[in-house]
Amino acid sequence: MSSLAERKARLIVHGEAPYNAEPPLARLRAYYRTAADDFYVRSHGDLPEIDADGYRLRLDGAIPTALELSLDDMRSRYAEATVTATMQCAGNRRADMRAVAPVSGDPWDGGAIGTADWTGVRLGDVLREAGIAESADLHVAFESHDLVEGRPYGASIPLAKALAPETLLAFAMNGAPLLPEHGFPLRVVVPGFAGVRSPKWLKRITVQDHPSDNPIQAEDYKLFPSDVTAETADPAQGHTINTMPLNAAICEPARGARLAAGANTIRGYAVSGDRTVVRVDVSGNGGRTWAQAALEHDARARFAWTFWTIDLDLPPGEHELAVRAWDEAGQTQPALPDDTWNYKGYLSAAWHRVRVTVE
Amino acid sequence: MSSLAERKARLIVHGEAPYNAEPPLARLRAYYRTAADDFYVRSHGDLPEIDADGYRLRLDGAIPTALELSLDDMRSRYAEATVTATMQCAGNRRADMRAVAPVSGDPWDGGAIGTADWTGVRLGDVLREAGIAESADLHVAFESHDLVEGRPYGASIPLAKALAPETLLAFAMNGAPLLPEHGFPLRVVVPGFAGVRSPKWLKRITVQDHPSDNPIQAEDYKLFPSDVTAETADPAQGHTINTMPLNAAICEPARGARLAAGANTIRGYAVSGDRTVVRVDVSGNGGRTWAQAALEHDARARFAWTFWTIDLDLPPGEHELAVRAWDEAGQTQPALPDDTWNYKGYLSAAWHRVRVTVE
Repeated sequence: MSSLAERKARLIVHGEAPYNAEPPLARLRAYYRTAADDFYVRSHGDLPEIDADGYRLRLDGAIPTALELSLDDMRSRYAEATVTATMQCAGNRRADMRAVAPVSGDPWDGGAIGTADWTGVRLGDVLREAGIAESADLHVAFESHDLVEGRPYGASIPLAKALAPETLLAFAMNGAPLLPEHGFPLRVVVPGFAGVRSPKWLKRITVQDHPSDNPIQAEDYKLFPSDVTAETADPAQGHTINTMPLNAAICEPARGARLAAGANTIRGYAVSGDRTVVRVDVSGNGGRTWAQAALEHDARARFAWTFWTIDLDLPPGEHELAVRAWDEAGQTQPALPDDTWNYKGYLSAAWHRVRVTVE
Repeated sequence: MSSLAERKARLIVHGEAPYNAEPPLARLRAYYRTAADDFYVRSHGDLPEIDADGYRLRLDGAIPTALELSLDDMRSRYAEATVTATMQCAGNRRADMRAVAPVSGDPWDGGAIGTADWTGVRLGDVLREAGIAESADLHVAFESHDLVEGRPYGASIPLAKALAPETLLAFAMNGAPLLPEHGFPLRVVVPGFAGVRSPKWLKRITVQDHPSDNPIQAEDYKLFPSDVTAETADPAQGHTINTMPLNAAICEPARGARLAAGANTIRGYAVSGDRTVVRVDVSGNGGRTWAQAALEHDARARFAWTFWTIDLDLPPGEHELAVRAWDEAGQTQPALPDDTWNYKGYLSAAWHRVRVTVE
């Protein structure tokens, strides 16, 4: 295994403590499954070092009996499951919103996203074996080993999503044990939901009748209208970000690239939280006209991104490339980051635009 | 029961043969459940007259034995079910797209939509009792008594949606037998899907390994990019319109209204095929600033619209009111009908805009 320092050198680092970094977009587009050392890292606190042998996961709350499970317990008691799923930060593409007006948080480009084969056990199998009552009003709360301002990281998901077959307690990523920065030895993977609901370094699961009261859940990661500011925001009025919206990005060419006149290959990704991407349009002129890209998707991977490719004939001059996706409901993306701007810079999902010079 | 002529007089009639009509938007907003005689009518052919006593529904195809069911058979063999659901034409709000460039089809305003309590039996109950194999590759095709260019109306839906608990064979609307123009004596109701997949005057159900080859399914109701024309369209390349996109409309005040300066109440609907509407923003200045509307939704009615209301303080002058909704995935609507224009005028779901004069 490479060292964390070596892996950091591969990424664009937004912050060291907490450590936040994303890959260059071209490298993100190189493989449908993102290599673990190319995968964005979003931390809210320290990077905990956990001894796998002594590791125990505690399960308590609204279940008949509390449990403590070692990694071996989990492997022996429950069937192993692998899900190909995209993980994405709610702040992905925040840089585009920051260009409109100041926003809080790191200026992620389009790289706070990645797709992997996640292997572990189904959270639903664990909860059902623990005798959970399947009530629509229950929430499954997670607590982690990392500390955020002195308090363990915490978040929760509705029980229905916790019981869904795609939701995992994962110990491996692309067939190898999790890297320390991706949650070793065990993390939650909630496909289709914002990454914040997939805690790393998992310590405890509590079944309860209300969402987590951890500030990560109760205060952060809420979507507000554009007239709300840090001063006026009432977290109780914000929309809890769970399922992620339709989004797309141009990964190649890069912003500011100089291209040769003629056919140029444009490549990128498109993703929709829990829907299928059915079409991707690409424009060579900022959105006045569009052409349809070829799609590459693993049909078995319902919660994974779609790669797209198109050859555009570009004459000499300055060009604004743009991309927009369509989901199976015929919904598409707004044109401008202004249209969805919010002071936290969440869910930046307007047409992705890349200016290039053709010589 | 009022006569069809009386009911037509309540509606804005776009065509007599086939008969197509929608209610004024203010009347649509009067009740959460739309009265049957205020409900839009979308016909593709003649209005069949069917004798309920002699009526038989045929069920055949990939099931062990073909069935013929009278209305009494259905009522006695299967549990009655009622679902509150919105029905919407794929051409709803086409008028806004026609303002950008010519489109085919009737110029529906925002009234090709309505919500009702639909009562009947679950299509899934009928199919399961008939011994259907639950294969993801099966389709459930419908054929109706109305003729479209000499051929019975036909459409199909994927088996998964046919088996979903919300999908009904309905004989009643808001507690009364279906009106002739709404499909008497029996119609399909596929909540969340475009109305075209909910055939009226149902004659036959066929389980098969491919979508219906009826032109309604195979050629019409496909979504194309904006560069495709009637001459260049290849139906096989179009996206089959099933689940409907996020949409919203201002029902009051009407276009061109003259209002008094000060607080004015703005009302409308918002709807998302199979997602929940979590926020509705209203603008008094064409979208430069937005305020959050109050929502009114029946939480048990997962496939029904959300009503919204807001008081806006409007100074004297000309104003462009605008509305946009947000779904639970944090997705919102495009700003301009240009953004999603297609030559058939389907899925017109940009911000709805209403110009008014304040005196």
